Amino acid sequence: MLQSKIFAKLAKEDPKDEQSLNARLLSRAGFIEKAMAGVYNFLPLGSRVLHKIENIIRQEMDAFGSEILMPSLQPKENWEQTGRWKEFDVLFRLKSMHAFEYALGPTHEEIVTPLAKKAIMSYRDLPVAVYQIQTKFRDELRAKSGLLRGREFRMKDLYSFHASQDDLEKYYSEVQRAYSRIFERLGLRAILTEASGGSFAKYSHEFQVVLPSGEDEIFICEKCGLAKNKEIFSSPETEKCSNCGQTSWKRENASEIGNIFRLGTKFSSAFNVKFLDSEGKEQLVVMGCYGMGTTRLMGVIAEMHNDENGLIWPQNVAPFEYHIVPLFSKDADLRKKIEAAAWKIFSTLQKQGIEVLLDDRDESPGVKFKDADLIGIPKRVVLSEKTVEKDEVEIKGRAESKAGNMKISDFLKHAAG
Amino acid sequence: MLQSKIFAKLAKEDPKDEQSLNARLLSRAGFIEKAMAGVYNFLPLGSRVLHKIENIIRQEMDAFGSEILMPSLQPKENWEQTGRWKEFDVLFRLKSMHAFEYALGPTHEEIVTPLAKKAIMSYRDLPVAVYQIQTKFRDELRAKSGLLRGREFRMKDLYSFHASQDDLEKYYSEVQRAYSRIFERLGLRAILTEASGGSFAKYSHEFQVVLPSGEDEIFICEKCGLAKNKEIFSSPETEKCSNCGQTSWKRENASEIGNIFRLGTKFSSAFNVKFLDSEGKEQLVVMGCYGMGTTRLMGVIAEMHNDENGLIWPQNVAPFEYHIVPLFSKDADLRKKIEAAAWKIFSTLQKQGIEVLLDDRDESPGVKFKDADLIGIPKRVVLSEKTVEKDEVEIKGRAESKAGNMKISDFLKHAAG
Repeated sequence: MLQSKIFAKLAKEDPKDEQSLNARLLSRAGFIEKAMAGVYNFLPLGSRVLHKIENIIRQEMDAFGSEILMPSLQPKENWEQTGRWKEFDVLFRLKSMHAFEYALGPTHEEIVTPLAKKAIMSYRDLPVAVYQIQTKFRDELRAKSGLLRGREFRMKDLYSFHASQDDLEKYYSEVQRAYSRIFERLGLRAILTEASGGSFAKYSHEFQVVLPSGEDEIFICEKCGLAKNKEIFSSPETEKCSNCGQTSWKRENASEIGNIFRLGTKFSSAFNVKFLDSEGKEQLVVMGCYGMGTTRLMGVIAEMHNDENGLIWPQNVAPFEYHIVPLFSKDADLRKKIEAAAWKIFSTLQKQGIEVLLDDRDESPGVKFKDADLIGIPKRVVLSEKTVEKDEVEIKGRAESKAGNMKISDFLKHAAG
Repeated sequence: MLQSKIFAKLAKEDPKDEQSLNARLLSRAGFIEKAMAGVYNFLPLGSRVLHKIENIIRQEMDAFGSEILMPSLQPKENWEQTGRWKEFDVLFRLKSMHAFEYALGPTHEEIVTPLAKKAIMSYRDLPVAVYQIQTKFRDELRAKSGLLRGREFRMKDLYSFHASQDDLEKYYSEVQRAYSRIFERLGLRAILTEASGGSFAKYSHEFQVVLPSGEDEIFICEKCGLAKNKEIFSSPETEKCSNCGQTSWKRENASEIGNIFRLGTKFSSAFNVKFLDSEGKEQLVVMGCYGMGTTRLMGVIAEMHNDENGLIWPQNVAPFEYHIVPLFSKDADLRKKIEAAAWKIFSTLQKQGIEVLLDDRDESPGVKFKDADLIGIPKRVVLSEKTVEKDEVEIKGRAESKAGNMKISDFLKHAAG
């Protein structure tokens, strides 16, 4: 892709109306643009990172269920049936001109449960699970944390249906391990944290990333690493670690990047979703749900992976594999040579399906390097008067200080890998 | 994927509350499920077809602009600035509990134009274009055409920005050709149709597919094939074809699967989006927009590709490449042999990244064939007592009557290509 076409003039300063680190880093570098409080445009760079995050999640989730797509417009009646039309505090309630009323989906139990009712008849249909990656809406009072808390945001939500609590437990543990794999692939250290289980389960589990700007508070056992959300924590003096028995806790601010939840029969009883067991007896289906915010993940990755000059993406989610930065000479002939070499590298890599961003702009080396630092593609390929004279490029790591020159032909072979 | 896990009991009869052919075909076969009027769940089969349609569009659109993602929640002020807060007849207007008002995006000129304003300074930034594939909302009075007219639906929308009308015209023609390529890849014969251009252009162009259930009426020149939407057509007696001069017209019902539109400076003037031309003079940016409904495309493909037994997907958008249908013998040993062969084929193909649906259900051959006909995967691989004894499979085309047997080892080589 050409840097002149990514639809983003990089801001020279921090955006004044953004308080959060993630929104400042991502806006300055042209990944996102604020449409209004809590609502963002994902520009070409941001859209690419979001796709990568969502595809990593998709790859891991395909082993757990089939992908579906449920609607944002949801019938009011379904939300009344679970009692959440009035109770759900951040629910957007939408009135049509034509006398209909809708909930604007903040979550999808009210849709997936009646759907499951049509698909599940007998124990032979269980277990079964479906997931989606989709846009959610919440009527939040405050939205000052950038991508960490949006009024419109994207989520992966997985719902599982089981014949017994035991079967749910087994599946729940497997999803828990898959979540850890996903966060590892995304370059995040997530802490498994016990949290409130609602009315039907003792605990749920959250995956928390320690972040100064995180909206959650967690207490981490200094001996075994088990963590508890403040909402279910008594006090550091009296609380005993349920895992190792110690009472030594560290308090941290954290941001929740995933949660897994035993729903039990809360929603299957609201919608009367039953199956015939192997003895022909009717039983309520046992459910679990498993969420992961994909736009929030982008915000958390940004907050974790940066330095004073800008972002430093983990390779797995970087918008491009290589950033090609030709430094244009004032000498017309040399400039032509540099341009030709840059375009040759760009088109050769693109043809091989390697993702490359080419800084084709007519800017000074200083501006180009500053912008490249802001964008944070980990592998940078610099062409200058010096390198082109020797048919070389300079390979630079965004994170590391070490750099090295390489023959262009060798680099092309190396990149094709 | 296993057919027992696709979260859809196939309905044995037409769904009673669906009047449209596409919704009947797609619901019966388990691709979609109606959440309420004009709002659908896309089940595993439907979600796969939708992804394929959207990926074909993405492949063609990447040559025209960068992919972005704009929000559904849009500020009321932007819609007031274009005068469309009151004028836009199917706009969902959403009130927050916190004194905000939003438009729920039916289209994105009100978002993309202020965004472009930040990215475009000089003629050197032009032309530039961005597109997205995203969910749209329209507060339609009637929604009885299944996926052809939804209250919530998905669309690709591309927006282009130019320094001059001439540059727009050139780009417009190129998009027009790309649209034709997309529809061809999707197995649709689209008729380029002149339609109303709104207040700033003489004509826009629609791509129409002749369909008895289509909500549009078009008149097609019987000599040269040029078509006009009824909205800009006088009468078959007096209207002369602007292309060939003839006055012989055929009336057809049709469904619009794409439209391309010269916006001119309608939106750039509303948001004062200007650029400095090469002489340093300020000029309004000239815009075009190009829509394509991806869920509607799925409905139109369903209406065009079916027979009395169900759907027949074009290979490019079929949910799977192969449908493996083992017919279980009553003889336990033979059944084991058939099951083992089916699983071997299934896992071998899956490992090679070939998309396969395996009918693992314990149903009779009659039920399995009936359901396979409804689903409409074009290539079917049947295993039965007769074939397995000879280490063979029977290859059947969904559309054609010809079928043939093949050694399993030969089939696996053939499928691996």
